[in-house]
Amino acid sequence: MRLAVLGAGSWGTALAQHAARCAHQVTLYAREPELARAIDRDHVNPDFLAGVALVPELRATSDLGAAVAGAEALIVAIPSEFCRTFYRQLAPLAPAGAPLVSATKGLELGSLKRMTEIAAEELPARPLAALSGPSFALEVAREQPTTVVVASADEAAQVMLQHGLSSRSFRVYGSSDLVGVELAGALKNVVAIAAGIVTGLGYGHNTVAALITRGLAEMSRLALAKGGRAETLSGLAGLGDLVLTCTGALSRNRALGEALGRGQTLREAQAATRMVAEGVRTTLAACTLAERAGVEMPIAHKMREVLYEGKAPRVALDELMLRSLKKE
Amino acid sequence: MRLAVLGAGSWGTALAQHAARCAHQVTLYAREPELARAIDRDHVNPDFLAGVALVPELRATSDLGAAVAGAEALIVAIPSEFCRTFYRQLAPLAPAGAPLVSATKGLELGSLKRMTEIAAEELPARPLAALSGPSFALEVAREQPTTVVVASADEAAQVMLQHGLSSRSFRVYGSSDLVGVELAGALKNVVAIAAGIVTGLGYGHNTVAALITRGLAEMSRLALAKGGRAETLSGLAGLGDLVLTCTGALSRNRALGEALGRGQTLREAQAATRMVAEGVRTTLAACTLAERAGVEMPIAHKMREVLYEGKAPRVALDELMLRSLKKE
Repeated sequence: MRLAVLGAGSWGTALAQHAARCAHQVTLYAREPELARAIDRDHVNPDFLAGVALVPELRATSDLGAAVAGAEALIVAIPSEFCRTFYRQLAPLAPAGAPLVSATKGLELGSLKRMTEIAAEELPARPLAALSGPSFALEVAREQPTTVVVASADEAAQVMLQHGLSSRSFRVYGSSDLVGVELAGALKNVVAIAAGIVTGLGYGHNTVAALITRGLAEMSRLALAKGGRAETLSGLAGLGDLVLTCTGALSRNRALGEALGRGQTLREAQAATRMVAEGVRTTLAACTLAERAGVEMPIAHKMREVLYEGKAPRVALDELMLRSLKKE
Repeated sequence: MRLAVLGAGSWGTALAQHAARCAHQVTLYAREPELARAIDRDHVNPDFLAGVALVPELRATSDLGAAVAGAEALIVAIPSEFCRTFYRQLAPLAPAGAPLVSATKGLELGSLKRMTEIAAEELPARPLAALSGPSFALEVAREQPTTVVVASADEAAQVMLQHGLSSRSFRVYGSSDLVGVELAGALKNVVAIAAGIVTGLGYGHNTVAALITRGLAEMSRLALAKGGRAETLSGLAGLGDLVLTCTGALSRNRALGEALGRGQTLREAQAATRMVAEGVRTTLAACTLAERAGVEMPIAHKMREVLYEGKAPRVALDELMLRSLKKE
């Protein structure tokens, strides 16, 4: 299959590497010409996936038209805040009918839309899918056993992607619950910031485990209110990805929370990495979505107070832990 | 409140320490007289909770009758394999009507009974409860924020225990789902061994997260088939404790699995610690329960093959990861 992976951050690069290993003809699009050259010529991504030898068959370019020409599917992995603009740029270039797979985990501020909702507006008349699940990029690039979900309302596209992207070390499960998969992927980053704060404050594993449990409950409440399915939230794209992001060392949202817990400001914590911690923006979108849906999301609201209203992380966490006793 | 905590392993000692801090009059029963003396006189438990200064008000004794005399509640924290014998020994000594709280996480081999089912047979006519949730003993002893569940069919006992044991750093939630709480607490240890194997084999966080997700699904199938409730499995005693045990560094079941994954035999791995990894025995009970209930538990069955039938951990894990593709 001829595939275009759009976005050469760590996740896009890892997905492209994986797809190239599956013997697909893969072109990776990088905005920066130097980065495209490094990948195409030297088979490394020094900016976002340093230390990984990329397969020589993986092509890269900074010419978006060339990247997507003839592609039978497009996988997009760019930060959520750039998605609408990027989709507009992509619209006249993308081969007609080629499925678009969103691998971005976030929500659009203002509209509060999911990435495939934006794609439906900007790139209509093509199958849309979302790829999500517990999958640190570095581990995928290194062929550690990984499981993900591809969700699409278009069954043919879903099956094609599921089988086309599965390998011995990368198992792709199918789902038709786009809403649940995309909301879970976005919302877990908010909980991950809180989990990072717990660790940064010096609290232990018991506290993180409690937070993950409460976090999945509030993610599920919102996702179900928006039409997602309970099985999705308790599956790989929900529980699985939440656990990974809240406990694994490679999570940028968790790392950002940990820096906040240790006393850094948001600006300092964000300056420490070139990667985007999507949870910072998603916190705002999640709170607004929850308010409109009449759903209680205490962790997201505390994170909004910490990130945007100057509340001290320790005070926020104590308030979360000291909610009045009740039945589970 | 006058409380007896029976069993001076790490968990019993931590619970006794916590209860004594709550200003209850607590006596901790240790089978070994020397250990009881160390706790009572030197305020340390060198065998199971080294490095923690116990509160001086905490009394300890190796005289079971003295330990339970006048107790308004009994908290039992001994390995599951000794529970029936211990309950028989306790029956003539325990104050009439005092609630018994099981803090043991396991199932009886042969009968496949939960700990409170055994207690109901051996110590009838008293309220029975189970205490469970994500709670490493060392972190509880050090007052790290922790949340647990107390489940009982007896509402008065449940409320009394919930309020009596709650503090600023230790939050106790109530539940009436004894079946769900006890099965979740027992079954998570089986998944934790598998999670340890994953790490011991050198696989990464993606694989552990997938295993946790599949693990909770199979735990839930069995618990629901036995009358437990879905909310319990997705709550602190289910998801919360599972995540803790599968990712936290202090889990003895996970540590045992990790040793197996690195190539040790079961005998070698068990010899490395004085603590009991309950999951080894629970694996057998879980498989039999699942077979009788007609429930699929692939992880438990693979663990049985590894622990009791000599299957290589890597082969077992690969078989789990390579199940045929399907919808989630």
